[in-house]
Amino acid sequence: MPKSLDDLARELRDFVHERNWAQFHAPKNLAIALMVEAAEVAEHFQWSTLDESANPGPAKRQAIAMEIGDTLLYLVRLADVLRIDPIEAASAKMKLNAERYPVERAYGRSAKYDEL
Amino acid sequence: MPKSLDDLARELRDFVHERNWAQFHAPKNLAIALMVEAAEVAEHFQWSTLDESANPGPAKRQAIAMEIGDTLLYLVRLADVLRIDPIEAASAKMKLNAERYPVERAYGRSAKYDEL
Amino acid sequence: MPKSLDDLARELRDFVHERNWAQFHAPKNLAIALMVEAAEVAEHFQWSTLDESANPGPAKRQAIAMEIGDTLLYLVRLADVLRIDPIEAASAKMKLNAERYPVERAYGRSAKYDEL
Amino acid sequence: MPKSLDDLARELRDFVHERNWAQFHAPKNLAIALMVEAAEVAEHFQWSTLDESANPGPAKRQAIAMEIGDTLLYLVRLADVLRIDPIEAASAKMKLNAERYPVERAYGRSAKYDEL
Repeated sequence: MPKSLDDLARELRDFVHERNWAQFHAPKNLAIALMVEAAEVAEHFQWSTLDESANPGPAKRQAIAMEIGDTLLYLVRLADVLRIDPIEAASAKMKLNAERYPVERAYGRSAKYDEL
Repeated sequence: MPKSLDDLARELRDFVHERNWAQFHAPKNLAIALMVEAAEVAEHFQWSTLDESANPGPAKRQAIAMEIGDTLLYLVRLADVLRIDPIEAASAKMKLNAERYPVERAYGRSAKYDEL
Repeated sequence: MPKSLDDLARELRDFVHERNWAQFHAPKNLAIALMVEAAEVAEHFQWSTLDESANPGPAKRQAIAMEIGDTLLYLVRLADVLRIDPIEAASAKMKLNAERYPVERAYGRSAKYDEL
Repeated sequence: MPKSLDDLARELRDFVHERNWAQFHAPKNLAIALMVEAAEVAEHFQWSTLDESANPGPAKRQAIAMEIGDTLLYLVRLADVLRIDPIEAASAKMKLNAERYPVERAYGRSAKYDEL
């Protein structure tokens, strides 16, 4: 089993090349696919209450896991094609968020940083 | 810097708890956020040709990296709240895809598995 | 003011041609734009409870209205470019839904038609 | 057949009440549904070139029409629940766009208004 995003990216590269699919993997196409998969994750929660969403039954949790897996595959593939390191990017974004949402102002509030 | 998705998940957990934000992090809410961030990735490619999308300038690549980072953060957080291992899920999905898209039938074709 | 979707489609056509934008309006691009705008609608409800979402304050309702307007503009434009009548399409879909969700089975239930 | 968005909104209201579904139609839920349907429109164009997207075959055009119909249904329902007039909103937005994208600056360019 792949252990890291780098492993995943490598396996995906092989998967794509074996099938001669690189021709379809323009970032624009992959970005649509990423959004479509993220929507399929959200579809599982469409009619749930917030509480229900935290406790899906086993079959639903399994289905959600598959959609999260799909979303991660496209995210990793898109980043790979663009030569972006997704963990580095997430880490840079988290650092920015720490500045935008200082604990003392953001505590217990869901407002966007420009409205805090 | 975090080196793995587990590291990211842990840092996010701390980030959220310091700000008393766990109350907002129902999976339903996180799934909306994931979809919104994925849409922000796609927005960068909205009017590009396929070729242009493969060669964003440095400023655009940087902006895209930030949105990919945001998308990964919400994906990791959502998976963490649901106690799903995202790499395991992606790996299971890739295995399923290998069955759905055998090389000999899928070679050079973008059709969905049920239309191959 | 436009009174119908046909009026809107016509005004949009003029708007686009005056700006020489038809070159950007491939259905693929418009479909991304539609999805991005729909995500901007949803973003307003990202952290709300269900009850809160039903009672946005005046400023928020106004902002949501603008995003709904944007979503409708892209929907109408996409349909126009593909020569699809959106009201006819919605009407055909509603008819299909009436068959898929017969009152006696669907009453008070949010399950998808294939799980009713 | 409904002739206008008002007709559609009225028919949807009846459809929902007959099935006792108003309990599920919080704006937050409808906004997720709207985004999911918009993603299903985009999914049809995921792997197409721009040119191909302008010329779907008859079966694909029909499938796209159904997804556009679904998207419009949720848009109309969401607007109805929030007491927003979607045509008025689109018209207000188009007026704003006319100011943001004056012909002389926007001609033949796809840049966002704040980068024109």
